[in-house]
Amino acid sequence: MSPAATFSALLRGLPPPRGRRLLVAAAARAHSTAGGSRARGGLPQVRIQGDEFWHMTRVLRLGINDRVELFDGAGGLVEGSIQKVDKGGSDVKLLEDARLIAPDGIQWHVYAAFGTLKGGRADWLVEKCTELGACSVTPLLTERCHTVAENRVDRLQRLVLAAVKQCQRIHGMLLNPPIQIADLQPVVSQSKLAFVASAESPPLLSTLPKSCNEESGLLIVGPEGDFTEEEVNVLKASGAVPVGLGPCRLRVETATISLLSALMLWSDAHRQETLKCR
Amino acid sequence: MSPAATFSALLRGLPPPRGRRLLVAAAARAHSTAGGSRARGGLPQVRIQGDEFWHMTRVLRLGINDRVELFDGAGGLVEGSIQKVDKGGSDVKLLEDARLIAPDGIQWHVYAAFGTLKGGRADWLVEKCTELGACSVTPLLTERCHTVAENRVDRLQRLVLAAVKQCQRIHGMLLNPPIQIADLQPVVSQSKLAFVASAESPPLLSTLPKSCNEESGLLIVGPEGDFTEEEVNVLKASGAVPVGLGPCRLRVETATISLLSALMLWSDAHRQETLKCR
Repeated sequence: MSPAATFSALLRGLPPPRGRRLLVAAAARAHSTAGGSRARGGLPQVRIQGDEFWHMTRVLRLGINDRVELFDGAGGLVEGSIQKVDKGGSDVKLLEDARLIAPDGIQWHVYAAFGTLKGGRADWLVEKCTELGACSVTPLLTERCHTVAENRVDRLQRLVLAAVKQCQRIHGMLLNPPIQIADLQPVVSQSKLAFVASAESPPLLSTLPKSCNEESGLLIVGPEGDFTEEEVNVLKASGAVPVGLGPCRLRVETATISLLSALMLWSDAHRQETLKCR
Repeated sequence: MSPAATFSALLRGLPPPRGRRLLVAAAARAHSTAGGSRARGGLPQVRIQGDEFWHMTRVLRLGINDRVELFDGAGGLVEGSIQKVDKGGSDVKLLEDARLIAPDGIQWHVYAAFGTLKGGRADWLVEKCTELGACSVTPLLTERCHTVAENRVDRLQRLVLAAVKQCQRIHGMLLNPPIQIADLQPVVSQSKLAFVASAESPPLLSTLPKSCNEESGLLIVGPEGDFTEEEVNVLKASGAVPVGLGPCRLRVETATISLLSALMLWSDAHRQETLKCR
């Protein structure tokens, strides 16, 4: 389920010269679908309420006629202008048709066995994956990490939302339900770009292909105490490429962020190369 | 000051087939310098006490005749055997001359303006830099981040020690006193491998040199609210290469870990290439 479905509104900083951006579940869709209420001008209007209204008026002190961009965390983007601010919320008039922004570059899906991590380590694994731009994070269930607390998943969902707001992702990040290695196997088989963190393996950057036309890739990281040999073999047999973690022994969350960072920077470099070639 | 100076003893996991490793400030030096007390066998002996003694005996249940490796966080390494365990500590007999292990690969020095970070973000910036294998971390003082609390520095020093223990670094990580941009300038000028995090810049992985013989490099990351234009220009003028952070807007600590991860993985790949060529 897309976080967008749970979004209220969010200030998206000050991307000059366009003014502020607000994350509103229905907003960007309102216009094109002729949803939202019709204001006097005949233009559709969106009501901003709750946390985002508070943040927008109290923290950023936005008021009448301030320009904002509304986006829905699913790629929808539309410009609007604040028409009215009252006790309960504010009305934003949409000034254009909603644009749908397509995801750019390789979409990375993270499968990490973080169910057993303590001391907020799972929290920041998920938060940082969101900030770094992962497309989805899925808790991986393994022999040495066979559970994720339900309340933790709810908590993580809130963290994802907060991180999406903080780093202003036009596309939200999916936090999927936990998955077993056995169920991951077919996913890996179908992916041409799948890496599994494994100590003593060749460094990630030596294993990355010179050129790549894939639209998505997988990063798989084992639990504290690592995968069993059998689990690693299952993943390798499905086509996952084992990659090293550099000179140091890394915690689960550090390995995940470290490899994801390198992969994101690699795809970003690759994307910009491709743009140049066009 | 090297963390080694503050080290007591540390179990270094179970690097097979050598048995356990202990981090002992003086231990690895004891033999070569003929320091440490002489046991009946005429072999030098080292006394393990405090936290590490507790961890060693209670958590890992090591006892008489168990083999351990002692290292001092400064590259010194020596094998020993537990001779005696009493209430206050245990004696380890050294079985060989201490070896001095030279640092391997490019040594990365991190300069990050994390003084203003809240919610434990500075803590994990330093912890993760230690885990990832940074050679040193230096708080950077800038116009928008002009201070670091003293008590925070003490706390960070403890975190570095804990992380060194956790990830079993033979060489400790230095946490330097804060430095002003002006004082960083000459350091940058002297380095052939200096990168400064800067949004909208070319991706890091496109700016990395194809080959590199440098023994050390610098990573510079600005504060919340970023460097001032003047500060960036000063760093660029000194020879720092501006590098992008990928598609997302990253927090200070995330940018630091992201770029350091990529640099560590890059130097690791580079190091292994070099080894192959020998």
